[in-house]
Amino acid sequence: MECIFCQKTYSSDLFHLFCSECKEPLLVTLSKRSTKIHTEKSSPLERYIDFLPVEKIKPELFLGEGSTPLLKLNRLMDQFNLPEIYIKNEMLNPTGSFKDRGTVIAVHKAVSMGIKTIGTVSTGNMAVSTAAYGARAGIKTLVLVSEETSDEKLYSAAVHGAILIKVKGDYGELFYKSLETGRKNHIYFINSTDPFRIEGYKVTAFELFDQFKAKIPTHIFVPVSSGGHFIGLMKAFKELKKSHRIDQYPIFIGVQPEKASPIAEAFLKGESKYTRIKKAGSVAQSINNPAPPGGNLVLKMIREMKGQMIKVSDTEILRAQSLLASYEGLFCLPASAAALAGLFRLKREKKLDPQDQIVLIITGAGFKNIKILNHSKMKNFQTSLKKLDHTVSSIIK
Amino acid sequence: MECIFCQKTYSSDLFHLFCSECKEPLLVTLSKRSTKIHTEKSSPLERYIDFLPVEKIKPELFLGEGSTPLLKLNRLMDQFNLPEIYIKNEMLNPTGSFKDRGTVIAVHKAVSMGIKTIGTVSTGNMAVSTAAYGARAGIKTLVLVSEETSDEKLYSAAVHGAILIKVKGDYGELFYKSLETGRKNHIYFINSTDPFRIEGYKVTAFELFDQFKAKIPTHIFVPVSSGGHFIGLMKAFKELKKSHRIDQYPIFIGVQPEKASPIAEAFLKGESKYTRIKKAGSVAQSINNPAPPGGNLVLKMIREMKGQMIKVSDTEILRAQSLLASYEGLFCLPASAAALAGLFRLKREKKLDPQDQIVLIITGAGFKNIKILNHSKMKNFQTSLKKLDHTVSSIIK
Repeated sequence: MECIFCQKTYSSDLFHLFCSECKEPLLVTLSKRSTKIHTEKSSPLERYIDFLPVEKIKPELFLGEGSTPLLKLNRLMDQFNLPEIYIKNEMLNPTGSFKDRGTVIAVHKAVSMGIKTIGTVSTGNMAVSTAAYGARAGIKTLVLVSEETSDEKLYSAAVHGAILIKVKGDYGELFYKSLETGRKNHIYFINSTDPFRIEGYKVTAFELFDQFKAKIPTHIFVPVSSGGHFIGLMKAFKELKKSHRIDQYPIFIGVQPEKASPIAEAFLKGESKYTRIKKAGSVAQSINNPAPPGGNLVLKMIREMKGQMIKVSDTEILRAQSLLASYEGLFCLPASAAALAGLFRLKREKKLDPQDQIVLIITGAGFKNIKILNHSKMKNFQTSLKKLDHTVSSIIK
Repeated sequence: MECIFCQKTYSSDLFHLFCSECKEPLLVTLSKRSTKIHTEKSSPLERYIDFLPVEKIKPELFLGEGSTPLLKLNRLMDQFNLPEIYIKNEMLNPTGSFKDRGTVIAVHKAVSMGIKTIGTVSTGNMAVSTAAYGARAGIKTLVLVSEETSDEKLYSAAVHGAILIKVKGDYGELFYKSLETGRKNHIYFINSTDPFRIEGYKVTAFELFDQFKAKIPTHIFVPVSSGGHFIGLMKAFKELKKSHRIDQYPIFIGVQPEKASPIAEAFLKGESKYTRIKKAGSVAQSINNPAPPGGNLVLKMIREMKGQMIKVSDTEILRAQSLLASYEGLFCLPASAAALAGLFRLKREKKLDPQDQIVLIITGAGFKNIKILNHSKMKNFQTSLKKLDHTVSSIIK
């Protein structure tokens, strides 16, 4: 592993995942002798195993993650006069979010190192994902959450038998405290910027490389929270370039909600370190992050790769969520819709070209949280069996 | 199309889907000249297009349905000394249930016939699926529900812009009444036993045929509600046999909950027609069906194919749901878990052989309805940042 800030290298160790000097997250170094793409394999993990920090893919850990579809959004393109847009549908992962791609690699690592307990600090998608793969592997799973978390949010991790611990105190601090507790108790905490989790996220980018037939889209829009997912996607394209598979990068656009945009703020101000915000208040819960642990790493990588960070409002996010559902049949979480909101923002600023080929990474399934739907819009009629014909014919006219 | 009771044939017509004589649901006749499997195609719909009532697969209707993984349940097999078990993970369809496979074929049909409005009678998975594909196709979608349905259950159909109509009166009657209203208003109602919907369900069986490398499992367990899904799966194996791809059938086991088992009751009594039950009261909502429109067709086909219908209790269903989640990381709806409950029932009755190869069809994702979880089982601890180390080390000991 390495710190790309200090250029210091570290040996692979599940209990020391941050640079001892600058405290930034470490990344796995691409170190295998070959960087062959095993095109004869249908499993993306096996196809790209030379790029991953595992020796062998274990089918007994597989839950169906990855191989997600790329869908062209014909109706939205027509309606809003947009360039070619595709979504990479990460909702179709086993627990309904992109997290599974990272969890499966981290759990491979845990199993190969003989780890008996894993954990995570999360209240949402990551908790469910870690609990599910922990169950599949027969490993005990701890989920640490803030004390205010409602029981209801925890059910879908609890069903996998995870042990839930509500912790009083600062939630940002809990992230780092969990790693300390993990070291003491030999528990591998697979948090949002875990280097092995990030390796798993790379596979989404490799699949895009395959789906675009070894060409690349011009832009990739990604909702950004802790930064882990975004870092993984960017890292994959760096490795494709390093192994001479591509000669230039797509333009990565990281999207944050205005009410939780510490990384985008720092980017716009030209700063290399983000400033933690007091209170994040976006409707997009999965990216409502006041203190992203991968924030500085995102800033460094996005500048190197000539991408950018942008902000969108909650109103824009909810509108994008509604458009994806009603024009394309895709019901995603508000956080995921931020990618489309970002696209509309760049379109308005005339920063897109009709020839562009754009990918939106849609990160999580909407039915995991239907509470935040705009219910007022529901078209709801009442009638009786007897009057059905009449009601229907008057409605559809 | 044909009625397999009266052997009467009908022309393909989206508004006449039941036999005019015996009132049973019609089935599509396999009528293409070739029954070639196009093995060079990666899309299952294209691979098996000769078996489907569409001329061309339209990628603009694709939402990522199908190509679902087959997962071996190693941990459950070990723990309970079971024969080889696999699940076909239908939770990984775009709207989280098997319904999408049927909807996509029916919507292909609707588009090719120039239909402007589609509809369905459902409160659950089918409503969401129909609304999503309606949105993707740019077709207006009506969802008819009983008047007691809570608004909350309708949100995930509403988000796709579906028009929701609550109808006062008998819900079973609404099924048939909707078809009458559809004929009058040129609305194609894609209900649970729609012949084209059933054609889409066949593709799951074709994928199994591919995944088992052209061999077949010994048993296939399927939760049964209206019968549409089950009929589709059985019909596919009949067509594989007819086209000389297999020479015997797997043993189909249809599973119903004790509190909603009109088809299983009739099967056990040796009757050819089921009797509608007064009130269905199972916790497994998606199969809690008192009057399944495909019930008699299921009885006829399951006997021909030497399968059987069985019943399981709600307690067995909830236990199976919990086992799948905690041993294998698979969180499904109670209805889906009925398949595993059925397997345990047959194991207890010593009707399984250690050499058997069993497939459970897991029909829908659990996080679509987390309300019915057994919350009392949640392991929930409380601590503070300061005491975290101590709490964690005492818990994992």
